[in-house]
Amino acid sequence: MAMALETPGLLSLAAGFTDNKTLPVGEVRTAVEELAQQPGEPEYLQYGTNRGRPGLRRLLAERLAALEPGLAVEALDAGMMVTNGSQQALYLAMQVLCDPGDIVLVDRPSYFVFLEMLTGLGVQARSLPLDGDGRIDGEALRRLLADMEARGETKRLKAVYFVSYFSNPSARSLAEVEKTVLAEVLAERGLTIPVLEDAAYRDLYYRQPYAARSVLTLPAWQAFPKLYLATLTKSFATGLKVGYGFCSDRAWLDKMLHVKGHHDFGTANFNQAVFERVIGDGGFEAQLARIRPAYEAKMRSLHGTLEAEGLPALGWRWAEPTGGLYLWLEAPRALDTGMNSEFCHACVREGVLYVPGDLCFGDDAPRHFARLSFGVLGGDELIQAARRFVTVARRFA
Amino acid sequence: MAMALETPGLLSLAAGFTDNKTLPVGEVRTAVEELAQQPGEPEYLQYGTNRGRPGLRRLLAERLAALEPGLAVEALDAGMMVTNGSQQALYLAMQVLCDPGDIVLVDRPSYFVFLEMLTGLGVQARSLPLDGDGRIDGEALRRLLADMEARGETKRLKAVYFVSYFSNPSARSLAEVEKTVLAEVLAERGLTIPVLEDAAYRDLYYRQPYAARSVLTLPAWQAFPKLYLATLTKSFATGLKVGYGFCSDRAWLDKMLHVKGHHDFGTANFNQAVFERVIGDGGFEAQLARIRPAYEAKMRSLHGTLEAEGLPALGWRWAEPTGGLYLWLEAPRALDTGMNSEFCHACVREGVLYVPGDLCFGDDAPRHFARLSFGVLGGDELIQAARRFVTVARRFA
Repeated sequence: MAMALETPGLLSLAAGFTDNKTLPVGEVRTAVEELAQQPGEPEYLQYGTNRGRPGLRRLLAERLAALEPGLAVEALDAGMMVTNGSQQALYLAMQVLCDPGDIVLVDRPSYFVFLEMLTGLGVQARSLPLDGDGRIDGEALRRLLADMEARGETKRLKAVYFVSYFSNPSARSLAEVEKTVLAEVLAERGLTIPVLEDAAYRDLYYRQPYAARSVLTLPAWQAFPKLYLATLTKSFATGLKVGYGFCSDRAWLDKMLHVKGHHDFGTANFNQAVFERVIGDGGFEAQLARIRPAYEAKMRSLHGTLEAEGLPALGWRWAEPTGGLYLWLEAPRALDTGMNSEFCHACVREGVLYVPGDLCFGDDAPRHFARLSFGVLGGDELIQAARRFVTVARRFA
Repeated sequence: MAMALETPGLLSLAAGFTDNKTLPVGEVRTAVEELAQQPGEPEYLQYGTNRGRPGLRRLLAERLAALEPGLAVEALDAGMMVTNGSQQALYLAMQVLCDPGDIVLVDRPSYFVFLEMLTGLGVQARSLPLDGDGRIDGEALRRLLADMEARGETKRLKAVYFVSYFSNPSARSLAEVEKTVLAEVLAERGLTIPVLEDAAYRDLYYRQPYAARSVLTLPAWQAFPKLYLATLTKSFATGLKVGYGFCSDRAWLDKMLHVKGHHDFGTANFNQAVFERVIGDGGFEAQLARIRPAYEAKMRSLHGTLEAEGLPALGWRWAEPTGGLYLWLEAPRALDTGMNSEFCHACVREGVLYVPGDLCFGDDAPRHFARLSFGVLGGDELIQAARRFVTVARRFA
């Protein structure tokens, strides 16, 4: 894909990159200028701590407390860890929880970089079963867990992972009731295993936040060790690469920090200082206020072009998202849009890239889904890319 | 130690941090300002690539080619990988080469964070034997390798690691003849195992570079897979956290990049863009020209105070370094200066911290060494710290 992305003329609806035109050039410049002018020694250019800059951790705790009423800032601060993007937090979590051969429950579809990481660690992904409406199916989950127990797999089940707000790839959010059912069914079986809630896109709603508490405050999850992850970079500037995790379990957090000490002994202090400043002075929220309508407009452009060009009439279905960076398209069941499919090759030849949906399933992957991102492209290029996609879809109809 | 460092009044000769007063505030501010003003889209705030920014990799290849005549810039560029400090390159190298129970040969003494990382990965360190002058002893190494073979350990020997210029902790540099003997003895036994040369302090000479080629150009190492590591942050601004490695072996490099993709899929692009600019416009070399005499002056202050206060008369010995951030002190053999020793506790009570030397040995650790850093402290504080240290030494004489 890296090579394809460098091919001139090719338009990428694949890359999960963010919009270049709205990147916060002024905010970053001002933050660095202010850091340079502050009195005293320029500690922001010195090593930080393994766990993350105390001032930033505090601001992150305050932001999270505002999202999740009832949690104390002090407790959130005490469990906060700053990482090289939320990706590093995911890696650390899996590295310390899992051995090769272990099993992790994942949402269906799920974040494909996480799934690839599991493969790299020799860990198996098992999909959370869905009902006919695409929601987590408690009864089917009961049967899955019973089957796993019968096969002696339960002792190798180490965690459950999902992207809960405007998900990558599905753009869907998990309702409170779904998360609660999941916890209840696990608890019934005594499986109070660590849960990873990936809230990477929670800030990226278009009009209003998705109204669902996270596992941190949903009562059904109380007895579970919890890691709530998010990133500052998708919402601000991906080039700054700062993510974070709040971990409710001290022993788990300490293990992750121990390994992080070996990985890099701390995320770049400079970047954390920039975020401390832009969050503290309101620049972070101002940037969010700018990009939310920008992404909504780009979503509507892609969505509208696919509709106007007649993709629904070809039997394709998708939901219009209310946040995030993706459209998740379901092709007619008989059409193979998967990796290395004829359709996939035809799209590259037509000059448009997408993420084959089969990459986004932990197991039992259907081959008639596609993830289209409107993060990078905009304007005429986005419309052109959408037209090329529908041109290929028409040819395969 | 983290707690001790925050205790007011305590002076740290322990932390391997760099000098705050000479941090390149102006260079960083200017670089960010210029990035903000460049025409076109602000790609420096967007995701970069897993392997590192092409322009920076090229500059790093050019710098390395200038240090190691005979190597082609293109070949260096092709093997270059940018990481979250050189620490991440060390971790990736060990993660892909070693399984628990494996063995790595290390210099004596060695970088204690590397040794801790090996412990974390379940890997054993075995020290390279030294002669009476403290140089790598080829004959003793032959005997060690023969013993290892007799014990069936050779197949678990996966790599050799050393810090070769103004080392942490010893401040010593490895002569070409030492590196060559090491390669020859390994090759005699058919052990052309991967070699990691950690050149983190190569830029930090005081008056002139240490005249020794690295394993990249020393003929005896030609057949070995080689990873040459260095950092931009010790030499410029530790808060920016960018290191790099050049790997001569494509398969090894690909494995490291694969795992890096799971760790974080790329080091912060913004930081790499700052380095691309400051290296490209000469700011990086200018900063080096500023800090070299500053560190030499601090070294002389610490060294001179220890001498003037009479530490040599108490039986302590050390070499005056010609680069780097450390003094490596040998106490009288009977004096225990190791971790949790009476001497160590007395120093904390006196208000001075150092790194107990026993932490810096892969095995068979002597307990009468101490690493003193003049990286952070300066002026009266450095002198005061040195006096406190000698006060304690006098009490234990």
